[in-house]
Amino acid sequence: MAATGSTSRRPGRRPAGSGTREAILDAARMEFMERGYDGATVRAIAARAGVNHAMIGHFFGSKEDLFATAIDWPFDPAQDIPRVMAGDPDHVGPRLAQFFFEQLEAPRSRHTILTLLRSATSNENATRLLRDFAEREIATQIAACIDRPDAQMRSALIVSQLVGVTLMRHLIGLQPLTAAQRDAIVEPLGEALQSLIAGCGRPAPQRPRA
Amino acid sequence: MAATGSTSRRPGRRPAGSGTREAILDAARMEFMERGYDGATVRAIAARAGVNHAMIGHFFGSKEDLFATAIDWPFDPAQDIPRVMAGDPDHVGPRLAQFFFEQLEAPRSRHTILTLLRSATSNENATRLLRDFAEREIATQIAACIDRPDAQMRSALIVSQLVGVTLMRHLIGLQPLTAAQRDAIVEPLGEALQSLIAGCGRPAPQRPRA
Repeated sequence: MAATGSTSRRPGRRPAGSGTREAILDAARMEFMERGYDGATVRAIAARAGVNHAMIGHFFGSKEDLFATAIDWPFDPAQDIPRVMAGDPDHVGPRLAQFFFEQLEAPRSRHTILTLLRSATSNENATRLLRDFAEREIATQIAACIDRPDAQMRSALIVSQLVGVTLMRHLIGLQPLTAAQRDAIVEPLGEALQSLIAGCGRPAPQRPRA
Repeated sequence: MAATGSTSRRPGRRPAGSGTREAILDAARMEFMERGYDGATVRAIAARAGVNHAMIGHFFGSKEDLFATAIDWPFDPAQDIPRVMAGDPDHVGPRLAQFFFEQLEAPRSRHTILTLLRSATSNENATRLLRDFAEREIATQIAACIDRPDAQMRSALIVSQLVGVTLMRHLIGLQPLTAAQRDAIVEPLGEALQSLIAGCGRPAPQRPRA
């Protein structure tokens, strides 16, 4: 977060500049988190950031563009997923489960993901953002590391499992998922992902059976 | 659907009786499906059913009670899940995947599930309904057939995988899930469920005590 991101700022004029851009983004994150995509207005974001609302158009274009920019992924899928998928192929499922839980348990990224998930079932712009991110950034990266003819489908099922766990643990409150410690989830989840990546009872594709 | 369920009925008075109850339920299903839980009003449901809106209170109590009754599950988990889980333990995952897809591909049950899923991320009543149904009716039934110490957690992960697939296939539109034929999904999905039920690379536990 930029030092300009205080949420207690009073509305008022602020000169255009890099601090303004960050202040708008911080205000947008708070508004989207508190009210969802439909409930957050450009006017309220501008008031919170202490800028004229025309400045949001100047910096970001539409509300949808602002939303896309404000979604601040805490990891870089293009770099992080291949790193996680590399290494011992017999434990790639557990590593992937562990990696996603590390992201989800960090409050900032959890808020980002939950905001998007909450908005995505009712708002078309949020649906498209979640679909594009899940497909282009996550599923494609995972599929590239699966050496099977139906790699795309298996990757989509892995993404579905991760989204499903996030939804049921944090938004719906399914027990024992909600109350559980991370390790109690990651262990069986890692097994399930391993079977999607490598096939149940088969060796992982990179390493031939001895 | 009852024969009284025509959606072209004009508003008007209708005498209390069993046909009225069915007409209200049919109208409620249409309104909840089209507008979600928050958007559907008791007044609009009454108008669609051709009854005075006080009659909805008389028959069903609150809007939440009406929603719970209108959710018309096309299968009986207490009967169907133990039946699906019984039989050859090496193929219980594929059978479970096949069973849920049969339910989801039937338009009426798909609409029920998608309505609930769409409402559950933004409305507390719908959240509770989905949680209660997923936990008491589905997860408990599946866990009872898993003979492992962390059966509850594995069952919750199975439910999460099924919810995640439904969400990504029908509401978010993740490819290739959305375009795929049922069998292309059921095969790898069945493998993943099998590994959650039986453990990857282990024999499935024998039928637990009756």
